Order: sequence, then C-alpha cells, then structure tokens
Amino acid sequence: MIQYLNVLNCKGSFVVRVGVVGCTGYTGIELVKILLNHKEFSLEYLSSSSIDGDSFSDVFGFMQSITDLKITKTNTRDVIDKCDIIFLATPHKESMKYVKELYSKVKIIDLSADYRLDLDTYENNYTKHIDSENIANASYGLPELYREKIKNSSLVANPGCYPTASLLGLMPFIDYIKDDSYIFIDAKSGVSGAGKKISNVAHFPNMNENFMPYAVHSHRHLPEIIEHISKSFQKSLNIKFVPTLMPITRGMQANIYISNFKLTNAREILDNFYKDEYFVRIKNEATNVKDVGGTNFCDIFISQDKDSLFINTSIDNLLRGASSQAVVNANIISGFKEDLSIPKIAYMP
Amino acid sequence: MIQYLNVLNCKGSFVVRVGVVGCTGYTGIELVKILLNHKEFSLEYLSSSSIDGDSFSDVFGFMQSITDLKITKTNTRDVIDKCDIIFLATPHKESMKYVKELYSKVKIIDLSADYRLDLDTYENNYTKHIDSENIANASYGLPELYREKIKNSSLVANPGCYPTASLLGLMPFIDYIKDDSYIFIDAKSGVSGAGKKISNVAHFPNMNENFMPYAVHSHRHLPEIIEHISKSFQKSLNIKFVPTLMPITRGMQANIYISNFKLTNAREILDNFYKDEYFVRIKNEATNVKDVGGTNFCDIFISQDKDSLFINTSIDNLLRGASSQAVVNANIISGFKEDLSIPKIAYMP
Amino acid sequence: MIQYLNVLNCKGSFVVRVGVVGCTGYTGIELVKILLNHKEFSLEYLSSSSIDGDSFSDVFGFMQSITDLKITKTNTRDVIDKCDIIFLATPHKESMKYVKELYSKVKIIDLSADYRLDLDTYENNYTKHIDSENIANASYGLPELYREKIKNSSLVANPGCYPTASLLGLMPFIDYIKDDSYIFIDAKSGVSGAGKKISNVAHFPNMNENFMPYAVHSHRHLPEIIEHISKSFQKSLNIKFVPTLMPITRGMQANIYISNFKLTNAREILDNFYKDEYFVRIKNEATNVKDVGGTNFCDIFISQDKDSLFINTSIDNLLRGASSQAVVNANIISGFKEDLSIPKIAYMP
Amino acid sequence: MIQYLNVLNCKGSFVVRVGVVGCTGYTGIELVKILLNHKEFSLEYLSSSSIDGDSFSDVFGFMQSITDLKITKTNTRDVIDKCDIIFLATPHKESMKYVKELYSKVKIIDLSADYRLDLDTYENNYTKHIDSENIANASYGLPELYREKIKNSSLVANPGCYPTASLLGLMPFIDYIKDDSYIFIDAKSGVSGAGKKISNVAHFPNMNENFMPYAVHSHRHLPEIIEHISKSFQKSLNIKFVPTLMPITRGMQANIYISNFKLTNAREILDNFYKDEYFVRIKNEATNVKDVGGTNFCDIFISQDKDSLFINTSIDNLLRGASSQAVVNANIISGFKEDLSIPKIAYMP
Repeated sequence: MIQYLNVLNCKGSFVVRVGVVGCTGYTGIELVKILLNHKEFSLEYLSSSSIDGDSFSDVFGFMQSITDLKITKTNTRDVIDKCDIIFLATPHKESMKYVKELYSKVKIIDLSADYRLDLDTYENNYTKHIDSENIANASYGLPELYREKIKNSSLVANPGCYPTASLLGLMPFIDYIKDDSYIFIDAKSGVSGAGKKISNVAHFPNMNENFMPYAVHSHRHLPEIIEHISKSFQKSLNIKFVPTLMPITRGMQANIYISNFKLTNAREILDNFYKDEYFVRIKNEATNVKDVGGTNFCDIFISQDKDSLFINTSIDNLLRGASSQAVVNANIISGFKEDLSIPKIAYMP
Repeated sequence: MIQYLNVLNCKGSFVVRVGVVGCTGYTGIELVKILLNHKEFSLEYLSSSSIDGDSFSDVFGFMQSITDLKITKTNTRDVIDKCDIIFLATPHKESMKYVKELYSKVKIIDLSADYRLDLDTYENNYTKHIDSENIANASYGLPELYREKIKNSSLVANPGCYPTASLLGLMPFIDYIKDDSYIFIDAKSGVSGAGKKISNVAHFPNMNENFMPYAVHSHRHLPEIIEHISKSFQKSLNIKFVPTLMPITRGMQANIYISNFKLTNAREILDNFYKDEYFVRIKNEATNVKDVGGTNFCDIFISQDKDSLFINTSIDNLLRGASSQAVVNANIISGFKEDLSIPKIAYMP
Repeated sequence: MIQYLNVLNCKGSFVVRVGVVGCTGYTGIELVKILLNHKEFSLEYLSSSSIDGDSFSDVFGFMQSITDLKITKTNTRDVIDKCDIIFLATPHKESMKYVKELYSKVKIIDLSADYRLDLDTYENNYTKHIDSENIANASYGLPELYREKIKNSSLVANPGCYPTASLLGLMPFIDYIKDDSYIFIDAKSGVSGAGKKISNVAHFPNMNENFMPYAVHSHRHLPEIIEHISKSFQKSLNIKFVPTLMPITRGMQANIYISNFKLTNAREILDNFYKDEYFVRIKNEATNVKDVGGTNFCDIFISQDKDSLFINTSIDNLLRGASSQAVVNANIISGFKEDLSIPKIAYMP
Repeated sequence: MIQYLNVLNCKGSFVVRVGVVGCTGYTGIELVKILLNHKEFSLEYLSSSSIDGDSFSDVFGFMQSITDLKITKTNTRDVIDKCDIIFLATPHKESMKYVKELYSKVKIIDLSADYRLDLDTYENNYTKHIDSENIANASYGLPELYREKIKNSSLVANPGCYPTASLLGLMPFIDYIKDDSYIFIDAKSGVSGAGKKISNVAHFPNMNENFMPYAVHSHRHLPEIIEHISKSFQKSLNIKFVPTLMPITRGMQANIYISNFKLTNAREILDNFYKDEYFVRIKNEATNVKDVGGTNFCDIFISQDKDSLFINTSIDNLLRGASSQAVVNANIISGFKEDLSIPKIAYMP
C-alpha cells in the first residue's frame, strides 16, 4: 500500500526528486519526516551503509502505514539516477567519499562537517580530506549569513548544531564587539545530539537526572564558529566554548557572554538585523527549548548590564541544528519559498 | 502580519469555518495547531472564559510568527456568526451551557464528557445536566465504532482518552468474551492528561521520577467504557480499571487482561477487525508511546497464553485521546477524507 | 587516607568481615554503599571479573574521599581468607561457579537466580546448573516468608526484584484465593533494573519519555513467584505477569489483580499478616516509588470491589529488590537485629 | 512506637537537643532526615506555621515507621525550652521574627537570607529588616571561608545555594584575579530549588524536557556572592550571574568563566587551597550532579586556555546548598567533628 503524503501541486506532478543517504540516524530520520510532507520535493531514495532492502517502516515502527519506501545500500549510481537533490546525513569522513563522486551530477546538501571549513581547519580538527578541491565549491548553509551564496551553489555544507545556535546569537553584534572583548559561550544540548549509537554516557541510568560539561575548550564546533565569523565579518573574536549535555532528548541553547560591551541599543540592533528573517524570533524573556522543539525557529533573547551583553538562543538541535535547516537550504537552491513545508509549530506541551 | 498556514484548495477559497472555545488548555492548543494546518478548515475563532483581546501568540510564545488570531471572551453569538463547526475544548459542565445555545445553529464537536453518556450515568458520575435533551442527539466520537452515526450528526461527543485507548483494544474481542470473564485494565497516562491547572500532584519535584495509581476503582472513564460496550455490543462486561500517572508529558497505554479467554486465533480476529482502519496499527511486539506521540494512531499488540488474553494499546493522550480524534470527527461530519490534515508522523526521537 | 565510615562498636573491634564479588554493577555498588556504613560488618574485600588493582574510588568518582578499598580480580582463595560473609553480586551462571567452591567455607548471600529455584525450574528458564547439590542447601532470602530457614542457612539465594514486589503483595491473601481465580500482575520497573551494560533499549533518546511492556508472558521471574507460592502455601495459583520498563532510574511497582475475590475484610487480613514486619508499611492510598526510593521498605495498598482485589506494592528495585534485602539477610544469618544499618529514609524529594 | 534512629553515644545520653522550625519545606525535610540519624544531636522539636499536632509521618508518608515526632505550631517559648540549637528553615522575612526573640537564648542556624548580608544590601534586595542589630552577630555559614568565625558564633546565616556553589569555585583564585577581569557565572539548578509551593513554571508539563534562564542579571544571590568576596578578600570583582532552571529534581552547577586569567598553575593553586578540606573534591574531568547528589560534597573541575579560566562546580542544592551545610555548621558550633553524621555517599545510580 503506497501512502505518500506529498501533496500534488496544481500542475499534478512532482517537481524535484530528492533522497537521503544515511537515513537511519536521527538527522536522517528527521529529514525523511520533513521530506515525506514536502509539497515540491518527492522523496524517492533512501539509503544506508548497512541496510539493503528493508522497508523504512520495518526498521522504524513509528513509520508503519506512512510510507512504503525501502532502504537500499548506498550506491552513487542510484543517487545520480534517482535524485535531483541528495541529502547526506552521513558522518564526517563518509560524506566526502560521496561528494567526490556526486559533485556536479546532483545537488548536494551535506549534513556532515566535511565541507564547512577550510582545509587546514578541517584537517586539524577532523581527519585527512580526500576531496579538498570541492571545499571551495561549498556554501555554508546558514541562510541568515550566506543566503546569496547558497542560492548559487550546488553543494551546501549544513552547519553544525552548536554553530547555528551560537552564530545566530552573535551575528547582529559582531561589528560592535571590541577587539579586547572576551566571548564565553556556555551551550547546552539534549542527548539526541550525541547520536543514535549507544554509549556509556548516553546509558539511561547515567544520563537521567544528570548533566555535565564535556569537550571543555576542545569541541570541534568552536573552530567552525570562529572561522565563519572571520570570513563573513573579517573579525577575529576571542571565543571560548563549553557545551553541557542535558538530560532531555532534544533541545539546544547557547548562553553567550560578551565582556566590555557598552552599547545601550543592543535590542535595537538585534531587531533590525533580523527584521526580515522569518525563522529568527526575538523574545522579551529568556528563551526555552520547548518553544522551538519540533520547529526550524531560533528564538533569541538578550539582556545587558553596564558593561556586558548576555545573549540566549534556543533551537531544536535535530531540526534547526541539522535537518530542517538542510531542507530550507534545499528550498533555496531550488528557488522555492524558503519556508515551504518547513516545520513551524512546536511540539507543545 | 497575517501568517495563515492554511493552504488554499485549488478552488481558491476556504470551505469550512471553524473555531475553538477554550483554546488555552492543552487540548485547545492541540486543536489550534492542527486546524491552522488544515487544508479545508479555516480557523476563524478562538475564545476563552478569561481572556479577551490578547493574541494567541502573545499568550503562547511558541506561536509567535505563526498566527495573528486573537482570543476573545466566549460569546455564543460570535460562534454562530463566525463558525460552521465549533470545537468545545471546555471542561465538563461548561460545554453543556454552550451546546444548549448552539445546537442546530452550528455543528459541534464537544471534547468534554457532557454528551458521552446516558443521563443517569452522567449525573451519577459528574453533575446535574442542564441540557439532557441533547444527549440523544449526540454521537460518540469513536469512528471505529460509530462512524455512520457520526456522519449524520451535528453534535459529536468526543471520547475520553482512557476510553479511546481501552475501547480500541477491547472492541475486536467483545463478541468472544465469556460472561464469566474478568477484564482488568491497568492504564497509564502522561501528566498532560491532568491538565494545565497547577496542582500538588503535578508539581515537578513530586511527579518527576515517580509514578502512582490514582482514582483506583473510581475513575469516571470506567462507566464510559462500560456504557459504550453495552450499547454497541449489547454485552455487560465485568471491567475493573486502575490508571497510573506517569512521569512523562504525553503518552497513554492501556494494558488489558482478560481471564478465561481460550480462542487461539486472537491475532486473526484483531487483524480482521481493523483491516480497513487506517488509524489503528497492529504491532508484532509490545507498543510504546513514542511511536504514536504526535499522531492520531493507536498501536495495538496482543499476547495470549492458555487461558487469558493480554491486549496492549498506545495512543497520544492529547491527540488520539482528544484533539486529533476531534478533528477526524469534524472531517467525517464535513464529508472530507477522514485522515485529511491529521497528524501521522511521530515526534521521534 | 583511609576513611572507613564503619563505626566501632563499643567493644572496639569489627565483628564480621564481609566482601562483595561483582562490586561494579548497580547492585554491587549499592551493597558497597550500605556495607561501608554498617555498624557490625567490616567491608574488607571487593572484587570483579575485569578489574584488578584499581581503587573503587577511581572507578567510581562519587566514592572519592569515601574509601581506599581496592578492587581485585575475583579469587575464591582470597574470599575464604578475608571474609566471613561474601555477597555475590554476579550474574546468573557466574554465581554458581563461586558457590561451588565457597560453600561451607564462608557464608554466602547470592544475588543471582542460581539458587532460588528447583533444578528443573532453573534449567528450564536459565541454563544448565553446575552445582545443583547446593540448591537444597539454599534458603530463599525473603525474610517475611522464610525467616527461620534463613537464620539457619549459610547460603541465601536473594530473591529477584519483581518476585519480592509481587510476593510481598500476594502473601497475605494466598490462603484465601480461590482455585479458579486469575491473578494478573502488571509490574513496572525503572531502567536500572536492566543493568549497567549499555543496550539499545536503555539508550537515553529511546527510553526517555517512553515506556513499554517487555518479556510479555515470558519473564523468568514468573516461575520464581509461582514456585515459592507453591512451596510455602502448597497452592498452585494461576498467575500471569507482564512487566513494563519505566523512564525513571529506580523504582518498582507491582499492580496485582485477583479475580473472584469476595472477602470483605482484606484490609484486616493484610494488617494482621504484616503487623510485626517493620519493613512492610501498609498505606491508605496508592503507593508511589519515591516514598521507598533509597530504602528497604515495601509499601502496600489494596482496594476491593465486589468481586476482585487490587494490590499495589512499591519497592526500590536496587535495594529491597536486591542489595538492602541482601544485607538484611546477612544480618539475620549473623544474629544481628534485622534492620541494623539498613537504609530507611527515602531520597525525597 | 518511638523509633529514634539516633545512636546513643557511649555515655548513654544525648548531648545536644535540636529542632527545626519550618520543617515541611524541602530544606526542612532534609534537615529532619539528617538530624534523625545524627549521633550527637537529638531531634526534639518540629514546628510549622500551618500545622499543629499532626505527626511528621502523617504529613510525609515516606516517614511512616521512621519517627513519631509531631509537628506543632511554631512557638518561641517551646523552642527555648526544648532546644539547644534551632534550625530555621523558614523563608526570608519569617526568620528574622524568630531570631529577634531567640538570639542569645538558643543557638540558631538560619537557612534564610535574613542575616547573610549587610543591612543595605539586604534591604535593597529583599525587604525591610526588623532585627538589624543581630546582623553583626551572625557568621556566614560557609566553613571553608569563615570556619573560625562560625565556631565562636551563636547565630549562623546559612548561605544560599548558588553562592555556595559559586564561592567555593571562585575562592582559590580571587587573589589572582585581575581588576579588569570579567567573571561570568552560568549556573544551573534542579527544580527543588524553586521550593515546595506550586507554580506555573514548576508545573510538570511545563518544566519536563525543558530548561530556561531566569532572573537574568537580577538574581538576589549575586549581591551575596559579591559581598562575601568583598569582605573576605577585600576585592571588588566584576561578576555577572545567570541561573538556568533544569528539568531534574535536585542538583546544581556553577560554570564560572574568568577573562584575562593567565596564570599557568591554576590546578596547583586549587589543590593547595582545598588540601585540608574534606568536603571539597578536586576532579580531573568535568563534574556531574549525580556524583554529589545526596551528599555534602562540592566537586570542582577547572580548565584553562591561554587567557581564561573555566571553573565548574557541582553540589546538591538541598544539601550542600542548604541543609547538610547547616548541620555541618551546627557541628562546628557544638565542637563536634565537622563531618559527624553528614551524608557523604551519593544516591547513585
């Protein structure tokens, strides 16, 4: 029984064929959920490195009666044949193997880190790059920062979750931050951010009712934040980053502290910077992660005292932090309205 | 800025105008979320007993940028003027005041208990009824049981959450249950089922990491289950019901134990009973509430031993247990496809 | 720095030397926590199959500054030399290897299933027994049922968690249960009951905000319940057992439903049965797991209707369900007051 | 049945009689739990503003079979007659009424804010003081900072929870912090910190799976931190403080970021500062709240980069953040070993 939820557009045909490589991890699953409901994209292809032939709904019981799509073992030939746009929800190091073969044959939205950074930064923080020539072809998929570049690219490097939450908070103020200011980012993420693979830290009795910082001063998302600020604003900011794992499934916040910030009109600057950005909402009180859970929204709140600025942002780490942002990028490169079929209503309560 | 998410149908106009009375409780909020996205219903009216003039998005921050709808103080004149169908997400005793004035002027989906039961049963369990003549005009909003009656009615009494979870589990087997069988229902619900009003039991430090039975042998949903089995199957079953409050936000399960059940083909009976019912999914292993959270699905699993039957059902207590089922009923009375714009994809992980 | 928390008794010496084999699992850790604070037991020996030489406080950071005890690789020679009583917090199949060598040389409290059951029942549900002759030497460590036998034994088979919660609830009524009664046990346990080893089901994003039955009609604790009722009461009851995994760390409940129960004085029977039992508390309202979390108490509540009995018990699955009950048994075989150094005050809120 | 858990000391008598005013809030309950088990204190008096005559165990079901103590309506005459030391677990503004009458008649450990601050600071942040003359008589109950003063005082102002977590983290470094350094404290607390009184924010469906900053730049604990640093170190530091409410019951962390900190031997400084302090544990990796939950320990971890210092502390907000620290203070003023009967072993897992 075929049960596509795609709505035929009035022309009576699907316009753009899409697929997801690595469809069994959390971000892959979120992509499938959004794409099945997308008005203009037709989800045609699901693949994985370890499954070949099973129905997506057999692997994921909650998808029973939703779709008949099958998962096949990833094969770039199939991708090229079946897809106009391919989403790579694969880990770093895996994505680049596929991009190497797929570039210019199909449009690519890559959710890994493989094309987010300059070669040096990448190799210092991840691993040896096997497709470095395509790094220059990639646009960084944060629309509020690189919209024009994304429009014209056929390879989008979807940002990391913490960088999205941090950059969206910082961007309005970067031009005003003094050279001697310190920026401390105290970030927090639900456990889905650690992925689907089982581990001691994510063992329920260890994580439940508990929280702890990790990767202190050493998280790979910090170089990503620094690099894009440098590129876009020609500024080298002194940023420190400490993430904390939180005993919830999904949700992410960045608390950003900026020293030696004395402008009195920070709120005006913020409002103005995002006045035309639908997916950024300015709040009058501290944000909370349930207000954005299940959506692509980033909520932002700020508070100033006499010499510092506090910025607080909330996103859904799997959606705005990965999959819904990826589909927004696909909308952009396809020339569709950016918010087309993007989840907007929170899973409240 | 008006930001309706309703999609124009190809005719370019909205077909059916709907409204929600009591839009600030959890089931009211869920109704708003579904109706804003409904292809054929246009959400025109939101009211509350205590708010008059505030934007829905001012009261509920997560709805910022989603809708400009305002909440007004409930007024039946307004309901009649603005709505073709009105959803009453009001407590019992409140709904009947409105139905008394609205019946036959507008179609009504009532989420309270006021029209679910015969007068005697109602008054023995709730309070004095002030609109008893309309009880006979109501259909009980469980489509798998009363679809035809719902189609032809203009007042639908939406079932209680526990009755939905219990009846869907029991219905396939009622004709086979022996007169001397005992039926024990051990049910479990997330805390949203207790409502938005603050209380000691729902105080986070009391409920977190805890669970406990309540209303043992005295929950008002038991007479509701018994009555509808009696009406539809002409059978008087010996049912005991004990609910337990669970330390999660949403999710509901009914574990149903039937003694002296010796048929060997229970699975065949189950499959057959629901073979044409899209929103009931039969599972090969015990159900879990996350697979149905955010959807209108009821998942069912059974297991037999030599002389008893175990039935396990899962639903989302706010959706299949209230609001999405209410919209399904509105689809039915409007002659639309039953699953039109009904949430189907779970909020996973 | 040695920081024993044992209090010298007035004689100025420690009376009984104890040890824990398998001290790194959850029940092993709970044993260490209780024994370090025990007035009469001196904790002298900690062993594991995989650690040899590390400090307990290096392996478990929360024990830093509490003890200098080291963990060594399990060696029965060491056990015999250093201990008067040994606690085996080892999995089934492991324990019997140790008991085979240790019996009659040291007193043994075994937390596994290896000596709880008759040979046939054991081998049908677990694995081949390699020390079956000692099964007859074991007492089953439920004091409310077998206190005299425990006093005189030197090998105690500590009960499983679900059997403790279920037997304590059933025992007062067994003599009154009719032959044709059905007994349905709907049990619930926090995730620590599944153990320390990582698994998909206990992966935080899967288990958080979720719950589901498991081992339906097939849990190994059912034969254990049935067998001890049969032995102690010479009655063969028709019991069905379905456990549900709960999204909390610790806590266990048994909801027991008995059909065809028409005695009107069930509360009197219950009060009388436990009137001299300190660690069973009778409650006037449904029990909750936080009231017993961190303690050895079993709370019990009952409710009757015209023809059935509902029994609801709560225990801490790691304590009364395993480790604190084990230390109570050690107190008994040592001739100490049963409640000596046994945790009694709940971790509330 | 009297069931005191106090152990007779070898002299065969209880040395010090204690009581708790406001014994029904969370910190009051924690005091009762500790004092019932205290070797040298005899808990003789429990009072509340609203209860008079009920047993503590009737009000708190988990205390059934633990104690026969009754709660009476607070009466200073009774306090003076029955107690040598009184613990005031009352809200601010309440405590000062009692201290006014009790000072010099009984030793007082006050858990409120009423005597922690200079008069001006207090009145600017709380309310008008009615017993300001006793402010000078109070010692601030943080032993690692004011041990000698506490020893000689008969009125101890127990610190707030966030100040304890923050001061313990900062103290070793204060002498080294530069005048132009910024100190940002990003703190996190479980919901028990908000108290027993029900509220919208602590309504389970709102708080579960959620977190949010609150009292941004306006929390009353900031002046407390600043004042005691100023008094003890004669330094005026530029501190910003933002707390976040966490979806757990108990647990507290302070993440402290210090700019322009370039000393390379921070770990050495830290180790040295606390080398004789039993209740501060230095950790080699980021701390977590479960390691200290149920104990009086404060765990501390630090990490440096080229120009900043990150300090991370964890405490149990109800124990080290209030009640166990209060009993430590009572031990000090009584001349007992500081750690006598103080909880040390975490509630793990």
